[in-house]
Amino acid sequence: MSNSQMVELTLLEPDGSESAVPCCPPITAGELSVADAEKMAAMFKALSDPVRLRLFSKVASHAGGEACVCDISDVGVSQPTVSHHLKKLKDAGLLTSERRGTWVYYSVEPSVVAAMSAMLDLRN
Amino acid sequence: MSNSQMVELTLLEPDGSESAVPCCPPITAGELSVADAEKMAAMFKALSDPVRLRLFSKVASHAGGEACVCDISDVGVSQPTVSHHLKKLKDAGLLTSERRGTWVYYSVEPSVVAAMSAMLDLRN
Repeated sequence: MSNSQMVELTLLEPDGSESAVPCCPPITAGELSVADAEKMAAMFKALSDPVRLRLFSKVASHAGGEACVCDISDVGVSQPTVSHHLKKLKDAGLLTSERRGTWVYYSVEPSVVAAMSAMLDLRN
Repeated sequence: MSNSQMVELTLLEPDGSESAVPCCPPITAGELSVADAEKMAAMFKALSDPVRLRLFSKVASHAGGEACVCDISDVGVSQPTVSHHLKKLKDAGLLTSERRGTWVYYSVEPSVVAAMSAMLDLRN
């Protein structure tokens, strides 16, 4: 597979610096490496909970692709549980957050979501 | 959202019959319903384990999109564990299987994988 078929992902290193790593090849391109499988499995795991998936869709579908935590908390669970789920999505790289004044605003990280979509695109 | 934007998925009913249901809208289309979120979360959960994801990529990348269980078992876990993971992928609708002679052959279910990819396609 040529490098042009790889999807570039920007991930945070443990020290907080950014590194652009190619991740991951389409699922049809060949056997996944152990490292790529662990990376992608963690992203899929972030979307493997119905409440977390609904919170993610609320952010993704919000005007401007950004939502205040105050706008997306009505998913039938407590505020600490909402915060826990948003942290998991952020830890997996699917959301970023920014505090502005009283509220924290969440945005979808498009490159990470695009990588997941491309990986499952059987036309690749 | 118009019906033409929905991805058609064929799912097995509990009685074993097939039903074509529209699932699921792109993540950017609006808030996911509870039912759609549960359906999609179960599919993402199937890919949330690194060994399961590697087995899935082995089937998807095999010649003809089909692999004998005898061809894909070298992922560093025992045969019963391989069987357990393949069953999870099958239960989630991502793989189908067919016994021919001694061996069971697994194939990717393209409509289900395409639905997952389309759901995460931010261009939708």
